[in-house]
Amino acid sequence: MKQIIILINIDGKSIKGNFMANILVLYDSNSGNTKKMAEYVFEGANSSGNNVVKLLCVDDATTEDINWCDGIAVGSPTNMGLLSWKMKKFWDECGNELWGKIDGKIGCAFSSEGGWGGGAEITCMSILTVLMNFGFLVFGATDYVADKFTLHYGATNPGSPDSKQAIDACKRIGQKLDHWANKYFNK
Amino acid sequence: MKQIIILINIDGKSIKGNFMANILVLYDSNSGNTKKMAEYVFEGANSSGNNVVKLLCVDDATTEDINWCDGIAVGSPTNMGLLSWKMKKFWDECGNELWGKIDGKIGCAFSSEGGWGGGAEITCMSILTVLMNFGFLVFGATDYVADKFTLHYGATNPGSPDSKQAIDACKRIGQKLDHWANKYFNK
Amino acid sequence: MKQIIILINIDGKSIKGNFMANILVLYDSNSGNTKKMAEYVFEGANSSGNNVVKLLCVDDATTEDINWCDGIAVGSPTNMGLLSWKMKKFWDECGNELWGKIDGKIGCAFSSEGGWGGGAEITCMSILTVLMNFGFLVFGATDYVADKFTLHYGATNPGSPDSKQAIDACKRIGQKLDHWANKYFNK
Amino acid sequence: MKQIIILINIDGKSIKGNFMANILVLYDSNSGNTKKMAEYVFEGANSSGNNVVKLLCVDDATTEDINWCDGIAVGSPTNMGLLSWKMKKFWDECGNELWGKIDGKIGCAFSSEGGWGGGAEITCMSILTVLMNFGFLVFGATDYVADKFTLHYGATNPGSPDSKQAIDACKRIGQKLDHWANKYFNK
Repeated sequence: MKQIIILINIDGKSIKGNFMANILVLYDSNSGNTKKMAEYVFEGANSSGNNVVKLLCVDDATTEDINWCDGIAVGSPTNMGLLSWKMKKFWDECGNELWGKIDGKIGCAFSSEGGWGGGAEITCMSILTVLMNFGFLVFGATDYVADKFTLHYGATNPGSPDSKQAIDACKRIGQKLDHWANKYFNK
Repeated sequence: MKQIIILINIDGKSIKGNFMANILVLYDSNSGNTKKMAEYVFEGANSSGNNVVKLLCVDDATTEDINWCDGIAVGSPTNMGLLSWKMKKFWDECGNELWGKIDGKIGCAFSSEGGWGGGAEITCMSILTVLMNFGFLVFGATDYVADKFTLHYGATNPGSPDSKQAIDACKRIGQKLDHWANKYFNK
Repeated sequence: MKQIIILINIDGKSIKGNFMANILVLYDSNSGNTKKMAEYVFEGANSSGNNVVKLLCVDDATTEDINWCDGIAVGSPTNMGLLSWKMKKFWDECGNELWGKIDGKIGCAFSSEGGWGGGAEITCMSILTVLMNFGFLVFGATDYVADKFTLHYGATNPGSPDSKQAIDACKRIGQKLDHWANKYFNK
Repeated sequence: MKQIIILINIDGKSIKGNFMANILVLYDSNSGNTKKMAEYVFEGANSSGNNVVKLLCVDDATTEDINWCDGIAVGSPTNMGLLSWKMKKFWDECGNELWGKIDGKIGCAFSSEGGWGGGAEITCMSILTVLMNFGFLVFGATDYVADKFTLHYGATNPGSPDSKQAIDACKRIGQKLDHWANKYFNK
């Protein structure tokens, strides 16, 4: 499908005739493992170079950051099978200001767990539940990053993300976010 | 943000200078209640008139219908807290042909349950889980359709969808699908 | 099945020759609605009079309360489709002391939401996810409390629980907890 | 806590003065991987030797088998993030005869997936959702079977369960079922 797009009002976002999408990688981390994952997700989210990508610990995030982004990857340690209370607190408190006003952004998830089978998939789903509640369109990835390693509901990994598969899974969910942001927001 | 869009190649989809997205409302129904919901979802999905909208019982659906659509609303009765086995069978069997090849579509859910608290929300989430597995970006709606009636994870209703709220919830999830299809696919 | 049970060591819990189970109704509440639900759950949990039942706001709860109970009902407002951050914080912080040491208790859930379809079922499932993580056996109820009102994954209600159905649903999940505590812990 | 239990009516189940619980390991399998998992779960469920344990493919199962069991482990391949349609069909069809009549049994889950992060945890949760709907009390396990391998929501494994960790996870969920059956049903 070919289009000629002539931008009239570019909202200060244009580079080389394209809009850039704003991408936020937001994480909480207890042990440092989810932080490491976040850094790889961030790397993946920079793949195309088309978008503005920001990496942020939840301790430093504000409603303005959520408002700003077109796409988000949210990462949390798997704590009792769900996102951490700190990440939950952030979104609960965002509600007053943002809820119902930011529909139509896109989002995905990642989580570090204690062991395979430890709840990281369910934690990713809990993150996506929160994002859906705020009106995000959420996604995982059909991709396999290696034999027997995938990220259908977000990138998951037990312990420190040091294996090639763990690193690739994190990068891949970031790439997906970059990819869909390019497809849906860069017009 | 203003754009002037001049369509060069319209892939046979243009009407009045716009691309049309293809929207599928796919349902299974035991008692007829989910079918009724599907008809209201279908009505909502036709709101803008910009898109081609098709209503289909899962008994009559093929992989080609899934391939065809850009956006989908999938409805199922709440059977034991999840989508019906027939709807599941359809998607399981779609897998061989479609899985990994149709990423980037958008989707939402609706479900008829026996009673409030009967699992329709969880059923919607099970539908969205399947859609995410196929690479869909999935969504609910922040909207309230009446005091104490919403559809955050898809439209849900106990029994026959005859109340104004039930009808509006079904229409609303259809409208959302139409809305996001317009935003993301009609360029 | 008939048994004659002669209690030799009653751990200080016996009344009229029976062991009493310890039941905790633990809640968080923003608006007061979940608190009201908790009071009805508490009432239901006292149905048989066989057990010691305690009602507690999460602000006042400690790990000792969790340790103490044989069965628990956990209630939270539906905040973004999941339990509240305060309830999550409580359980996250319980982890260090209790996790892996209290397996085999039983538990159920209840939640107040803004509107039907607003995520209370999913919130109940998030509560049950946390409880499962701590080794609880968790349950809902097959019961209908009225035409089109049930509590398959816990008691749910939009707004203030003032209707007969809402009150009965809360009482019923409490009764179930009492019932299974009698069956499994009072020997 | 010491008890002297004198059995008066043993319902034909007594061996050495104990009641035996009936345990069912029920599975569906596409590739054979979930079947292998089921065999290890079965082995684990025989740990104490106190109970009658039956291993059954869903193709051969009837409502009578569900009625018979006190405890169940249900295994399914991870198909699109949920239990297989065949396993779902079985339970949907059990509904007419059994639903609302078998409350108070206990249950757990296991699932074989294509890759880590592929949805086996969510599939286990979908199985547990079905079981809860039928009034089961459901559980996972806090146990780690090796460094970075656990089964908090049921035993999960990508591909064939040949590693020591995979085998141990399957056995462990079976042992847990045996353990809780002993605790709750063998009086």
